[in-house]
Amino acid sequence: MPPKIATNPFLDVLSGQWQAVPPVWMMRQAGRYLPEYRELRAKAGGFLDLCFTPELAAEVTLQPIRRFGFDAAIIFSDILVIPHALGRAVRFEVGEGPRLDPLDTPEKIATLAAQADFAKLEPVYEALRQVRSALAPDVALIGFCGAPWTVATYMVAGQGTPDQAPARILAYSHPQAFAKIVDALVESSIQYLLGQLEAGADALQIFDTWAGVLSPREFLRWSVEPTARIVAGVRAKAPDAKIIGFPRGAGALLPAYVGGTDVNAVSIDWTAEPAFIRERVQSKVAVQGNLDPLALIAGGAALDQAIDDVLSNYAKGRLIFNLGHGILPETPIAHVERMIAKVRAWRS
Amino acid sequence: MPPKIATNPFLDVLSGQWQAVPPVWMMRQAGRYLPEYRELRAKAGGFLDLCFTPELAAEVTLQPIRRFGFDAAIIFSDILVIPHALGRAVRFEVGEGPRLDPLDTPEKIATLAAQADFAKLEPVYEALRQVRSALAPDVALIGFCGAPWTVATYMVAGQGTPDQAPARILAYSHPQAFAKIVDALVESSIQYLLGQLEAGADALQIFDTWAGVLSPREFLRWSVEPTARIVAGVRAKAPDAKIIGFPRGAGALLPAYVGGTDVNAVSIDWTAEPAFIRERVQSKVAVQGNLDPLALIAGGAALDQAIDDVLSNYAKGRLIFNLGHGILPETPIAHVERMIAKVRAWRS
Repeated sequence: MPPKIATNPFLDVLSGQWQAVPPVWMMRQAGRYLPEYRELRAKAGGFLDLCFTPELAAEVTLQPIRRFGFDAAIIFSDILVIPHALGRAVRFEVGEGPRLDPLDTPEKIATLAAQADFAKLEPVYEALRQVRSALAPDVALIGFCGAPWTVATYMVAGQGTPDQAPARILAYSHPQAFAKIVDALVESSIQYLLGQLEAGADALQIFDTWAGVLSPREFLRWSVEPTARIVAGVRAKAPDAKIIGFPRGAGALLPAYVGGTDVNAVSIDWTAEPAFIRERVQSKVAVQGNLDPLALIAGGAALDQAIDDVLSNYAKGRLIFNLGHGILPETPIAHVERMIAKVRAWRS
Repeated sequence: MPPKIATNPFLDVLSGQWQAVPPVWMMRQAGRYLPEYRELRAKAGGFLDLCFTPELAAEVTLQPIRRFGFDAAIIFSDILVIPHALGRAVRFEVGEGPRLDPLDTPEKIATLAAQADFAKLEPVYEALRQVRSALAPDVALIGFCGAPWTVATYMVAGQGTPDQAPARILAYSHPQAFAKIVDALVESSIQYLLGQLEAGADALQIFDTWAGVLSPREFLRWSVEPTARIVAGVRAKAPDAKIIGFPRGAGALLPAYVGGTDVNAVSIDWTAEPAFIRERVQSKVAVQGNLDPLALIAGGAALDQAIDDVLSNYAKGRLIFNLGHGILPETPIAHVERMIAKVRAWRS
């Protein structure tokens, strides 16, 4: 490993070393709450154009690092680049979120390509190379993908829905057809994550935003098992790969996720129960999280209390300070500055 | 207590007696999946007209009992009758859900009535009297209200939203103003639930549909504490009142809810982790739930498996078989029949 590793607090935590001052970054830190992002976004074309133009994606990735000095950058991209590389039409409509052609019957699923066109993902790798060469060695670069379950929910419904019912019903009614989508996503995600490591990513995060809508049996089958295959597939070629899983809303199922997937850390949402997490999760892996993004909007005494809660609950163990979900566009920048100052002033 | 109690399996479970064949009912069992409901609904006026016309509300409440022979009926009403009695305009728009005038600033909240106009709720009591007199003694009648947190989320936002962010931000930014809404709801709910008991309800359920979006600190403050005050307030006048709490999505926070509220049972959603629930929840109170409503739509092998999972996970302890959330309009009636047959054929 290059010498930078030894002085990178984010990677040190993932490697098993407790840090008195937890490293800090934010999910969706390159985003609309930043005026410099909004300015660049207005000049770019569509959302996917931004993701697939390496210079712009790299610039957007670096913006929050320059402004706030976070301990990690996460490559600016989207979990739906994999369906895109699998030949599915992906559109982002302003204020509406993503739209795909629904893949909601066994007949349609039978037409799904088994192999992604990885040439389509080259611009992401190039953006990673540019970001890594621009970053100081003590700042980590995170690559990512969506977990197969979450990506499949969008592919089946063709959009986000309140509880992703279309994919859940399809998985109950036609498990073999649904497994075909998941299998294609597992294989593509392994290659995509390996490509990101090769392009300069220091660690990887797997986002399972919709893990929390599944019953325990379905959670093991559609969240844990495919994620475990991705982790094993990546480590088969990159044995030291550091991987963070984020099964949002998994609640009391988190220990099953940790035990089943072999991730190095889990990102937890703001509803997690602290004693349970410490005893059943942080005793085994590092924890990342878990400030309520709405406390970050509210600011004031509520924000101070919420930051203190995260630190006093988890900083005695291995913690990467983060939000419990992505930062929201209406968040005041002064609140982010206050959060970072409080985290950096913390002494366990 | 009247002699019917001794032969009512639903109430027996709430009173501490294990039943080899768990009693069964479904949340939202009087609803749009039933043709006889849709027929009556088309003839009634608006949704609140149906709730406030005792003959129609009673008829709709009894429809699923006649068709399926459930062990409990739940009075047909809505959690927003309390804001209505507090003088807030409540409208139900077709296909859109409820609409209220948002109560989203401390200034607006200062105008909120402290006392509900309980005369407005008389039709609910009359419907309860009619249902109780029509029901066989071995079928229980459940009265209900919304938990203050959940009702307040609708009052603040004026509608349902993906994660009830408006109320969450208000509770962070203006906790004292928000507490004024919660306090009014606590007081009104105590009186309302006592009125329902007096009118013939055998047990009560408190629906906290949005409990699962709160951080642990906010959960204790806005879900557990107000619910505990309602339970204590009801029991101060009706010491033997049987109360079921449903903090949907509470996950690993369920033990804190059980310990903090003194409910007789908790309703659990379909994402609950079975070993955790048995050890930390069912060891203390009865459990109600928790079939995934989407498995009930899917039917077939997935439904059979999901029913077996609920029974094998929980029927060795005190269980009231139910769904993990309300039945959905598109659910086939044959699937409900299959569910009941499988539950009634169960032997632990």
